[in-house]
Amino acid sequence: MRTDICERLGIEYPIFAFTPSEKVAAAVSRAGGLGVLGCVRFNDTEELEETLSWLDDNTDGKPYGVDVVMPMKIPTEGKAVDLKAMIPEEHISFVERTLQKLGVPPLPEGEGREGVLGWLHSVARSHVDVALNHRPVLIANALGSPPVDVIEQAHDAGVLVAALAGAAKHAASHVANGVDIIVAQGYEAGGHTGEIASMVLTPEIVDAVGPDVPVLGAGGIGCGRQVAASLALGAQGVWTGSIWLTAAEYDLSQGTGIRDALLRAGSGDTVRTRVYTGKPARLLKTKWTDAWEAEDAPTPLPMPLQNLLVADAHNRMNSGDDPDTISMPAGQIVGRTNEVRPVEQIMAELVSEYEETVARLEKIRG
Amino acid sequence: MRTDICERLGIEYPIFAFTPSEKVAAAVSRAGGLGVLGCVRFNDTEELEETLSWLDDNTDGKPYGVDVVMPMKIPTEGKAVDLKAMIPEEHISFVERTLQKLGVPPLPEGEGREGVLGWLHSVARSHVDVALNHRPVLIANALGSPPVDVIEQAHDAGVLVAALAGAAKHAASHVANGVDIIVAQGYEAGGHTGEIASMVLTPEIVDAVGPDVPVLGAGGIGCGRQVAASLALGAQGVWTGSIWLTAAEYDLSQGTGIRDALLRAGSGDTVRTRVYTGKPARLLKTKWTDAWEAEDAPTPLPMPLQNLLVADAHNRMNSGDDPDTISMPAGQIVGRTNEVRPVEQIMAELVSEYEETVARLEKIRG
Repeated sequence: MRTDICERLGIEYPIFAFTPSEKVAAAVSRAGGLGVLGCVRFNDTEELEETLSWLDDNTDGKPYGVDVVMPMKIPTEGKAVDLKAMIPEEHISFVERTLQKLGVPPLPEGEGREGVLGWLHSVARSHVDVALNHRPVLIANALGSPPVDVIEQAHDAGVLVAALAGAAKHAASHVANGVDIIVAQGYEAGGHTGEIASMVLTPEIVDAVGPDVPVLGAGGIGCGRQVAASLALGAQGVWTGSIWLTAAEYDLSQGTGIRDALLRAGSGDTVRTRVYTGKPARLLKTKWTDAWEAEDAPTPLPMPLQNLLVADAHNRMNSGDDPDTISMPAGQIVGRTNEVRPVEQIMAELVSEYEETVARLEKIRG
Repeated sequence: MRTDICERLGIEYPIFAFTPSEKVAAAVSRAGGLGVLGCVRFNDTEELEETLSWLDDNTDGKPYGVDVVMPMKIPTEGKAVDLKAMIPEEHISFVERTLQKLGVPPLPEGEGREGVLGWLHSVARSHVDVALNHRPVLIANALGSPPVDVIEQAHDAGVLVAALAGAAKHAASHVANGVDIIVAQGYEAGGHTGEIASMVLTPEIVDAVGPDVPVLGAGGIGCGRQVAASLALGAQGVWTGSIWLTAAEYDLSQGTGIRDALLRAGSGDTVRTRVYTGKPARLLKTKWTDAWEAEDAPTPLPMPLQNLLVADAHNRMNSGDDPDTISMPAGQIVGRTNEVRPVEQIMAELVSEYEETVARLEKIRG
């Protein structure tokens, strides 16, 4: 399974794995795909520095990428403490009331930490600076085009830039800004996502950006039949995320709640909501997301305030063992992850099922 | 392009075209697919009788199907006049107010007709009775399993039964009821639809019903790449709808509003709403659907009351020339129908692009 993007990035299979876990990213790269480390969780650039050094050392010299969260337009900026002052009292008391109602225990002594700051422009920019001291082959931006100077900074370092798009017009504008690769993020995807489903979105973006711009299909990809479908739609590769959250190598969860919730969830157990960051993102449907749909719930705040509001609550819920009260981005493909498996096995099955599928299509063609 | 379902139904290509237009249905069947006539618009069984006789005579002896709208559980029943008494005054005045606000003219003298009654169980059952006097090879039900005695009635006549499903568990239950073919109706589809996108839904249903039950992929299918994607996902064929609404043979529109709206709409110009029938269905987004999203709008009524409430309004809007004020089911694939083309040409392109796509996938496999 080889497309042009494999040559450009020096990878064996056009399978891109977005993951916050460096262990998973490294294993995907070693298995011939491209592990792409999500950087948004790193408030501390030194921790990112160390993690990327670890990746450098543990990918058998194979390529990897990084993913940042950087709006094109610089949003409200400032230190966490200033921003927190902008959060209405009504929202704070709703979060506290909800945690109490759901019986979420406080964090264990000494385990508190500040909210995720990676949503802040200045922090995302520092992620790029740190990454470029290492050897990523790709910087992806989860919120579309990064600012043009960041694209130039990456290009000067010989690094390609990918940007997520949920509509053809956004993809065209990313390309005009200098983005090299478009990730066509369908409605069914986890995390930030638009309303057009992959079946329609992928060929629409492929047609909009033309044959010289590689498009990766994202949203709903978890088995080799789906890889084949995405490539049939014109993608040069697939961008996967949710299927790696239950990989054996994934070790970011403190409690068992998240993994249990992911393993048991069906494709109908997700919801697209502004609860996580202030922009629409697909999450597992839990008692927490249900609470935000209730009549007494306030309207979520704009980015970056909403995540600052809920970050502590997420830490408290996600460090526990209760799968009913977690906050976790996941796509509809979560219905397909029903057991913990090593990355190498998941990769091998994606590739072999792709091959079987193409043989079947060939037979249908007659 | 041949799968097992082609043998079973005696068709050349596994391309199913749902359409309310007998002209389009006949042209699809003549071109080697299966035209499936939507019966819900026939209040008068004699009109359906005549239309099916016309189909018998104009399909060059090739097979065709019919589509009815029949809930498994028999809902509130009665004559239009009894049901209309159940519609709240608030809803009636909202519809009138909205039509006035949008400047929708009254119907031309003598063109009024009663609401669509095909949603009524008794009427849908009469559609089946009439159809079985003709030579359909397939009866499809847009609302899942028909009642078991209707399935038996079809089987006794040697006619296969298909049912739409938006979730794997519904598909499994349809099969348990005796349904022969499942139409996996993805989120992106026009008309009644669920929340799971085709990329995830199709293989999930294929796996749930097993290899002996043919699955047709529906939602987002409008070009040969999408046909290949759907077959890659495990479907034995594709179920298409929206792409035929702008076929040259389509002649049901009185004014130019509907066609203009379909031709100009992008993939983002649809909305999933309960406005049309009381159950979630995807429609073109227009000033009419916007009005129902406004703060002063009432909650849509349950089926069959909602369609009785709005049927006159739909007739008034759809007979006019204003593409901003129409009410029309359409899927996200509407972004791909930008010109009026004959059925034969659309069919030929679906087939040839499928073949090109498989050749490309074969090359990627290496």
